[in-house]
Amino acid sequence: MTTEAKPSPRERLLDAAAALTYRSGVNIGVEALCKAAGVSKRSMYQLFESKDELLAASLEKRTSAYVATLLPAADDKRSPRERILHVFAQVESQSAAPEFHGCPYLAAQIELKDQDHPASRVAHRVKENLTSYFRAEAEQGGAADPDLLARQLSLVFDGASARAGIGADKLPGLVAPTVTTLLDAAGVR
Amino acid sequence: MTTEAKPSPRERLLDAAAALTYRSGVNIGVEALCKAAGVSKRSMYQLFESKDELLAASLEKRTSAYVATLLPAADDKRSPRERILHVFAQVESQSAAPEFHGCPYLAAQIELKDQDHPASRVAHRVKENLTSYFRAEAEQGGAADPDLLARQLSLVFDGASARAGIGADKLPGLVAPTVTTLLDAAGVR
Repeated sequence: MTTEAKPSPRERLLDAAAALTYRSGVNIGVEALCKAAGVSKRSMYQLFESKDELLAASLEKRTSAYVATLLPAADDKRSPRERILHVFAQVESQSAAPEFHGCPYLAAQIELKDQDHPASRVAHRVKENLTSYFRAEAEQGGAADPDLLARQLSLVFDGASARAGIGADKLPGLVAPTVTTLLDAAGVR
Repeated sequence: MTTEAKPSPRERLLDAAAALTYRSGVNIGVEALCKAAGVSKRSMYQLFESKDELLAASLEKRTSAYVATLLPAADDKRSPRERILHVFAQVESQSAAPEFHGCPYLAAQIELKDQDHPASRVAHRVKENLTSYFRAEAEQGGAADPDLLARQLSLVFDGASARAGIGADKLPGLVAPTVTTLLDAAGVR
């Protein structure tokens, strides 16, 4: 006999902040966040020092789930080339959803503009980890310049998710040929 | 004997909206906009139906100046390949400024999230025109698939300006090699 524990006020605030800022932007008001979470403002300020801290914690909390949707499983045995292409196939597939607004970590940084904001710092770290993943795979795959290729792939990742997120383009037939061209030019097997 | 005409309240509002939203985001308040422009709220609402309309008009107003900073002069006689690379050299050079926050038209769309917002529609059109420029040059330069190349170049443009705008990367040594690789693969002379 199991009972499902109701999420705590803290969890509910983190989830509401992640969902609402992704949909409406980081300027969503504290009132709206608390209402969506079913938590009083007083409780919110007991749990988090500020809305900025709540925002940072909500981006932090969703990181592992987000990374898991992009990267291959730990026991994936495919080639570096395929493991790189996997990330872009995942974004392509995610971008088909009507509620897709691009990479939440890129959007947060663009919206906040302040790179020292606690949420920007979380977002920056998540994106750097993705670039590190690309760099490690590029090295493994024998890229001529693994650092350049990793930066190029990060650029394509952000450009693709930004453009799909604003409905400027669709990723099928675009992102895979672009990445393939860059992998070929870098000599990644 | 000439006297410099003081900008009208309308001009001052448009300029303040462009500058403040670029620096702080589209959620900047009406009070702050009016204060920066030295115009009363009452006057603002006589000139613009809403803040949304002011925002759209301010993006519209800066379009020709923005496009002029990116595209070659009308009498430019260089090859399509060089005319494409010119755009990216311009972004690379702009991105070195400390006040660079990426492409204002991309940022506005990401921040607004609503593609039907009047300012999003202006921004969308400006970006489409850039893609059309790339497509025309790609055709002229004999690209195997001008439409694909134009979409790829737009993706690189947005990815590069977004990443430079948030300080995730610097464009020298990144954007030119990326564009060159795509131009080579497309067979653009």
